[in-house]
Amino acid sequence: MTKTKTPTSPLPDTIRQALRFDEHGLIPAIIRSNDDGEILMLAWMNEEALAKTIESGNLCYWSRSRARLWRKGESSGQRQRLVRLRLDCDGDTLLIDVEQTGVACHTGRRSCFFRELDRGTKQLSVVEKVLIDPKILYESE
Amino acid sequence: MTKTKTPTSPLPDTIRQALRFDEHGLIPAIIRSNDDGEILMLAWMNEEALAKTIESGNLCYWSRSRARLWRKGESSGQRQRLVRLRLDCDGDTLLIDVEQTGVACHTGRRSCFFRELDRGTKQLSVVEKVLIDPKILYESE
Repeated sequence: MTKTKTPTSPLPDTIRQALRFDEHGLIPAIIRSNDDGEILMLAWMNEEALAKTIESGNLCYWSRSRARLWRKGESSGQRQRLVRLRLDCDGDTLLIDVEQTGVACHTGRRSCFFRELDRGTKQLSVVEKVLIDPKILYESE
Repeated sequence: MTKTKTPTSPLPDTIRQALRFDEHGLIPAIIRSNDDGEILMLAWMNEEALAKTIESGNLCYWSRSRARLWRKGESSGQRQRLVRLRLDCDGDTLLIDVEQTGVACHTGRRSCFFRELDRGTKQLSVVEKVLIDPKILYESE
């Protein structure tokens, strides 16, 4: 079998060949706290962001709203260190355990998943407290 | 402020207005076991799949590969019952706790995230056992 090499990819072949990036060159990453298994956020990576994450051990994403690489915590200080990286059966999603400094959400909550649906009333309610004032998180910007 | 109503949406307004579906009309859903918090899979929903999930309490997805609605477990019997549904700060990802019958992965493993990266060697290894032979899961098809 001839191996197809992608010379322009910054990723090791073993990883590149196992993954399927979408039509925008992105893959979703589920980010989980290594301390207690809480799901903190979902973010997107391109090949470069994933390569930087693996090389440096600091989580790096592709910001779709800002259309640029985004090293988590670069403005808020709320960094994430890579502990464990898994991929799913289709190779189109990552599950990454991290050591989170402070909080993951830009609202100052620990997790981005702080709104919960009541199936009866169909209303959403906030189920997580703000731990850090976002003004303090981003005051250096 | 004038509320924009989407008369063709099968979703309640409270939910529809809080969510941002992508350019394909889809939103990713992280599926977590309610028993022990294990991440089982990531799947995609369109408005109809989400509405059916909320109404019926049985997890329903949009299969991108088959381009049709997919009631989880319809061929394998490995169903998922809705326990809790949260959304993230941007409204573009769901986190859903489920009661999983049997296994979530079509390979017969409990979770789809069964491959783990060794950062040193850059190799992937399988870290979860097959619990049910996939031939048995799909023998009725």
